[in-house]
Amino acid sequence: MYEKIKELAKLYYPDTVNCRRDLHKYAEKGWLEMRTACYIASTLEELGYEVLVGEDIMKKEARMGVPAETILHLNYHRAQKQGANPYYLEKVKMGMTAVAGVLKCGEGPTLALRFDIDALGLIEESSSSHFPFTNGFASVHRGTMHACGHDGHTAIGLTTARILMQIKEHLHGTIKLIFQPAEEGVMGARSIAESGFLDDVDYICAAHIMPQEDQPYDLYFGMDESFATTKLDITYHGVSTHAAESPQFGKNALLSAANCILNLHSIPRNSDGQTRVNVGTVHAGTGRNVVPETAKLEIEVRGVTSELNRYMEIYARDIIEGSARMHDTVVEIKEMGKAYALNCDDDFMNTIRSMCQQYLPDLKLPPYNLSPLGGSDDFSYFMERVQAHGGKATYMKLLTPMTSSPHNDAFDFDEKVLALGPRIFASLIYYLSHENKA
Amino acid sequence: MYEKIKELAKLYYPDTVNCRRDLHKYAEKGWLEMRTACYIASTLEELGYEVLVGEDIMKKEARMGVPAETILHLNYHRAQKQGANPYYLEKVKMGMTAVAGVLKCGEGPTLALRFDIDALGLIEESSSSHFPFTNGFASVHRGTMHACGHDGHTAIGLTTARILMQIKEHLHGTIKLIFQPAEEGVMGARSIAESGFLDDVDYICAAHIMPQEDQPYDLYFGMDESFATTKLDITYHGVSTHAAESPQFGKNALLSAANCILNLHSIPRNSDGQTRVNVGTVHAGTGRNVVPETAKLEIEVRGVTSELNRYMEIYARDIIEGSARMHDTVVEIKEMGKAYALNCDDDFMNTIRSMCQQYLPDLKLPPYNLSPLGGSDDFSYFMERVQAHGGKATYMKLLTPMTSSPHNDAFDFDEKVLALGPRIFASLIYYLSHENKA
Amino acid sequence: MYEKIKELAKLYYPDTVNCRRDLHKYAEKGWLEMRTACYIASTLEELGYEVLVGEDIMKKEARMGVPAETILHLNYHRAQKQGANPYYLEKVKMGMTAVAGVLKCGEGPTLALRFDIDALGLIEESSSSHFPFTNGFASVHRGTMHACGHDGHTAIGLTTARILMQIKEHLHGTIKLIFQPAEEGVMGARSIAESGFLDDVDYICAAHIMPQEDQPYDLYFGMDESFATTKLDITYHGVSTHAAESPQFGKNALLSAANCILNLHSIPRNSDGQTRVNVGTVHAGTGRNVVPETAKLEIEVRGVTSELNRYMEIYARDIIEGSARMHDTVVEIKEMGKAYALNCDDDFMNTIRSMCQQYLPDLKLPPYNLSPLGGSDDFSYFMERVQAHGGKATYMKLLTPMTSSPHNDAFDFDEKVLALGPRIFASLIYYLSHENKA
Amino acid sequence: MYEKIKELAKLYYPDTVNCRRDLHKYAEKGWLEMRTACYIASTLEELGYEVLVGEDIMKKEARMGVPAETILHLNYHRAQKQGANPYYLEKVKMGMTAVAGVLKCGEGPTLALRFDIDALGLIEESSSSHFPFTNGFASVHRGTMHACGHDGHTAIGLTTARILMQIKEHLHGTIKLIFQPAEEGVMGARSIAESGFLDDVDYICAAHIMPQEDQPYDLYFGMDESFATTKLDITYHGVSTHAAESPQFGKNALLSAANCILNLHSIPRNSDGQTRVNVGTVHAGTGRNVVPETAKLEIEVRGVTSELNRYMEIYARDIIEGSARMHDTVVEIKEMGKAYALNCDDDFMNTIRSMCQQYLPDLKLPPYNLSPLGGSDDFSYFMERVQAHGGKATYMKLLTPMTSSPHNDAFDFDEKVLALGPRIFASLIYYLSHENKA
Repeated sequence: MYEKIKELAKLYYPDTVNCRRDLHKYAEKGWLEMRTACYIASTLEELGYEVLVGEDIMKKEARMGVPAETILHLNYHRAQKQGANPYYLEKVKMGMTAVAGVLKCGEGPTLALRFDIDALGLIEESSSSHFPFTNGFASVHRGTMHACGHDGHTAIGLTTARILMQIKEHLHGTIKLIFQPAEEGVMGARSIAESGFLDDVDYICAAHIMPQEDQPYDLYFGMDESFATTKLDITYHGVSTHAAESPQFGKNALLSAANCILNLHSIPRNSDGQTRVNVGTVHAGTGRNVVPETAKLEIEVRGVTSELNRYMEIYARDIIEGSARMHDTVVEIKEMGKAYALNCDDDFMNTIRSMCQQYLPDLKLPPYNLSPLGGSDDFSYFMERVQAHGGKATYMKLLTPMTSSPHNDAFDFDEKVLALGPRIFASLIYYLSHENKA
Repeated sequence: MYEKIKELAKLYYPDTVNCRRDLHKYAEKGWLEMRTACYIASTLEELGYEVLVGEDIMKKEARMGVPAETILHLNYHRAQKQGANPYYLEKVKMGMTAVAGVLKCGEGPTLALRFDIDALGLIEESSSSHFPFTNGFASVHRGTMHACGHDGHTAIGLTTARILMQIKEHLHGTIKLIFQPAEEGVMGARSIAESGFLDDVDYICAAHIMPQEDQPYDLYFGMDESFATTKLDITYHGVSTHAAESPQFGKNALLSAANCILNLHSIPRNSDGQTRVNVGTVHAGTGRNVVPETAKLEIEVRGVTSELNRYMEIYARDIIEGSARMHDTVVEIKEMGKAYALNCDDDFMNTIRSMCQQYLPDLKLPPYNLSPLGGSDDFSYFMERVQAHGGKATYMKLLTPMTSSPHNDAFDFDEKVLALGPRIFASLIYYLSHENKA
Repeated sequence: MYEKIKELAKLYYPDTVNCRRDLHKYAEKGWLEMRTACYIASTLEELGYEVLVGEDIMKKEARMGVPAETILHLNYHRAQKQGANPYYLEKVKMGMTAVAGVLKCGEGPTLALRFDIDALGLIEESSSSHFPFTNGFASVHRGTMHACGHDGHTAIGLTTARILMQIKEHLHGTIKLIFQPAEEGVMGARSIAESGFLDDVDYICAAHIMPQEDQPYDLYFGMDESFATTKLDITYHGVSTHAAESPQFGKNALLSAANCILNLHSIPRNSDGQTRVNVGTVHAGTGRNVVPETAKLEIEVRGVTSELNRYMEIYARDIIEGSARMHDTVVEIKEMGKAYALNCDDDFMNTIRSMCQQYLPDLKLPPYNLSPLGGSDDFSYFMERVQAHGGKATYMKLLTPMTSSPHNDAFDFDEKVLALGPRIFASLIYYLSHENKA
Repeated sequence: MYEKIKELAKLYYPDTVNCRRDLHKYAEKGWLEMRTACYIASTLEELGYEVLVGEDIMKKEARMGVPAETILHLNYHRAQKQGANPYYLEKVKMGMTAVAGVLKCGEGPTLALRFDIDALGLIEESSSSHFPFTNGFASVHRGTMHACGHDGHTAIGLTTARILMQIKEHLHGTIKLIFQPAEEGVMGARSIAESGFLDDVDYICAAHIMPQEDQPYDLYFGMDESFATTKLDITYHGVSTHAAESPQFGKNALLSAANCILNLHSIPRNSDGQTRVNVGTVHAGTGRNVVPETAKLEIEVRGVTSELNRYMEIYARDIIEGSARMHDTVVEIKEMGKAYALNCDDDFMNTIRSMCQQYLPDLKLPPYNLSPLGGSDDFSYFMERVQAHGGKATYMKLLTPMTSSPHNDAFDFDEKVLALGPRIFASLIYYLSHENKA
């Protein structure tokens, strides 16, 4: 069967490439993946999956960092013009852009895969050295670009779905293929996790494509050295006044902000491990001679464990609120994103290694299960939820050559990983389905 | 003659009102007063004045706060479309928008008047209670508005020019009527003062229309309690880096900025008099998870004497540079505006009072010469320059009812001051011309 | 009678000088004036006054800045050894060092004078150019020195008492001579004011000896340009920890303090008048490698009106508490001193001027009533209390040559003022007693 | 021979204990170990060692954190009274308190051991539960206490010397026993390292006694997770002024200090490893109403590698100097201590393990060579110097039960380690002497 899966992945490869290129061309940012979500939903429907969309699998109020309504509307109209499936478009239109395909194969374990679908806010490179540009699939949405490979993840997910449907008589249990919006900024996973959709999952896995560089391996079975993180938008509201005539009548939002900035960076180091803090942007004030009425900051804290991130967040909130108190301003704190640290199950990683060693002998395997992430992914919300309910979780790396590091406007990856990905995922589902049948 | 002047001011009043409303409708901000300057230049030319424009009376590099070239170009094209005189438009197009009319009347003193011509960056009120809106002369340049009465000042200046031309056989000496751009933000006066155009002036005077409120007076002969001020744009340049992966490779421009903000406000009070400091706007950073590469601040310092402002500016520069030093960033400081404190000559004010008492007996005069300004005006550059060369200077208040305080989007003033202004200025020129003839 | 008063002041002059030198030699700081208070009380008793001490005229809990008990005890024993009157010493021993002499002369107004009695924490100059040193009356209490003339004030008060007792048949009403402790640091007046002892006073007056310099006047009838002020001791309590092993277990009191310091200086200027803030001392931490557990700050705020001081104090308290909030420390705020701005009654000053012009014709009088103080005096508490109850108050300057400005370790004054002072005060009491008899 | 060494260590044990208790009783802080140094020198001389003291093995100007001359003198006189050997006392009197004993045994390697000799600034516990107190050897120098076991280290060193002298015919090469002052605060090692005394050393080793707790091992062969560190004293010098009369004439040293404090804590985290910063103490200002003229800070930075410490120190110096620049103060930076991170040689640690396994079979050995230090030791200066010249170095832990963690006023250790220490050191010297003979 592993051989058959390999062949199907090969057979579908041209379609997988086309799918990836289409998604790349119509890149959509977090919560705005309306055309993308409709594309996924329609495809899953055609394949024969039970399709769940939006409120079916999301807790609306658990979403973070959702854009303003006007922006949601604008993107709804754009998706409409681009021919998105009207039925699904109505369901996803206010930023409810999660999609899942469910395949029930009788008794057996519940197995889930996660594929993230959103793009980044970058203006894509338009030079002759940039493959998507020269091959006509560079983003037509100026300022939005798939520069982190989620176009590839989605295409891998849909081809995995196709393969699994081909072999469904040989499967046991229930399969959930989850297409998650708004992973960038770690905004989207919580809303799915808190919907309860994962609570019966026995095994969950996701993968991120990563630069292969000089390591001649095809995948890692897990990742560590990730950061738990919290993203906050902070707005200080004060009172403006003419800075020369009556400075005493103002309440200076910028003085609160300046204290907040300086003190956030002064949160003590922690001997339990690395922590981070950043104030990424500040916008304050309206005119040179006016005491600033508002100051808006985008910040994040991180820690290499969830506990360290919690330490940072609690301390940060003290500073944020103390800074308001100092200059008698009012502060509004909005949670814009959150992720735990990754905690991959050892035995699940070993299981995958065993499967590869036995049944996918042509793969080049690394000596260690784990490879560092060095950033954050809110797939950690899925892992945490599944593990809390007794399931197992891991987050793999799929290695392929890349033109640059992710989040770069010249980012592109070697599409050969679009064959590897579906093969590994489908093989894993088959393997787990059999290893764990009741 | 004073009676004749009064009648001419009355006679020309409807034209003065029309002029003011036209200027109000086509309000232009500092250095962009291209249509306005051409209007003034054409009018002065028609009246028979020798017209000097742009480089004739300005030192180009002494201008402060000049907008980017693209903005100058955009406004040039707008003025062109609005029918600005092409000859003058070429001369003023790159923000060289000062205009002067010179009238030579033989031997005698050199007498100068200053009228400021620029508008503010406000969106004008559009409600039924706002007279310019209901009467069809609200600004058609959205986001630009004459909310400080400079439309009135300019109209008063041009009618003064018209009256003086009518009585020119009765005048002695040289008369310079100067229409100054970019008074808001105290950006424009220096470029005229440093051109040397004022160096032979014996008497210079300007006036600002001000709210009459409950004081039943028509004018004050001078102003005090003004602030000397310096306006600076500060940009910290650092190095960005991914805030989680390698914070140590960044140089955080925002940390420099936060220190700068906090410490500017901590400059010690000065027992010699009131001082001020404000950081009006801050814009920093590009993304939540990126160490900010640049931070841009618009600041100002003030003091009720030029010495106090100097104290503030010197201290501020130490802080600005020390803040860069602390976090190894590079700082760029641009002077965007500057004004001295007003220092009105006692005997000149007394001279005007005498004239009013003798020849303008219907005016209601105040018991004191001086009234507080409470803000800044770079006419102080003109005063300082004239006084340094042995001349006399004062800055009067013309009182008239107003709908709101200046710099408000619902600002409007009682146009009766448009008759008063030309009468007083023309009378003063006549009086000085006679009192001081060789 | 004014002539008689003048002669008595002359007659008692040698005793006044001796008294002043004795007090100078045994200088005592605020709340520690135990020998001094006993000396005053005994003298008043001998003269025949009704003597009120400590709790008779003080509200104990309204005292500010009282030293620790051990210090009070040490000074009690010192006063004991120096032969202080045991009866009074028991009453003043725990820092209850106010004394008043009351003289009842039948119907008439209640008239009060205030004399402050405490010394400063300075090591007195011991050089041949310092008169008290060469004449054997330099302070024998090392580290305590009468460097602000309160020794002279007390001597003037006691001689005034002596003169008034001599002429008491000619007086009407009630006379209250109040000897106030702890004026330095503005710690003492409140406790007397809040006792209610001043509530029936019709006129109250105090005087401070001041440098005569080049002004050839003998006195000013009032003072202005004083600062209302609040003195606070602030202690941040955190938790210490080893700075390398486990910085995260600490709560850094010093980080709270650093924010407090920086932000106190950043309280906005106030267009209503001058304000001040100072953090005079900071002591924090126990060792280089230990996160500081406590940080102690001595601060003060001021304003040229009581309202401005209130503005500063309210803002300062926000900063102080916000700084604790930021780093999760606990802050303790102790009020160590407080004074209002001086508000001298115009008609009372004019009354004194009239008296001087009519009856003390040899005095050199200034053209203006008021002279600036430039500092603070908690006699303002007395003035405020008396004025609130319908009485009149002023605070005079007595001018005499000085060797240095006050609060200097080489301070000394020309003792001729010791004749002037009693003469003016006694004359004033006599004058008011007659002008205001029912 | 290893058996003989074991027996000698046992035989000398009572003397070792007495020696340790004597040193404990006369505890001396860094650079003040004058009695201690004389004691060591005399003992080594008696044993027959070539004795080198002070300038023989120290570079005077490379010492850090040396106390004021008056303090050196006071301690000199105390040591004199306590009977310190006058010959050596003259040599060590100005804080030149290093001592070395050299034993030449013909051809062979140069082998060095380091023993640190200084005590801490703590007031020793005086309760019935504190063994040194109940047994009469608590420190008689109030405020100085051996709370880090250096008394034990010194005693171990002297007994090691005694054993080696007993077996010297069996040794080869040159042995240098170095008794280092001022290890606390990492102030002393540099002066010895930079003298060149270590440049010919082939192997150097030191050991610190540490709590045994629940690990049943006798020693670790090396330490890691130490911090490289730099200790700085920072003094800001400004100009004082009366805070109310003329704040503008001051230069506020405390404002510089507050910025320094806040910003030192805000130095960015480093992804290469843990870093630390602490401002341990601050003392500033003289009075509440005086702008502070000076502010003195004791700070330290650390990093788990020497590079990380260097990153911290360079950044810290920018902040320290930028803070002076901001408020126009002058800053003085004194280096008070410095240490590198420990870098123990793998093969040297393996060598010691082999020796133990073969010849000291009764020792309980740990599975890993390394154990974390968690702090700093300037023995790293010795290691760095020896390694730079091609030698090998390690820093062992000797485990023994303790009553508390080090640097605690109730610290005491189980003296059984006083037998273990000399045995291990003497065995090691014997072993290396034979393994490496030419």
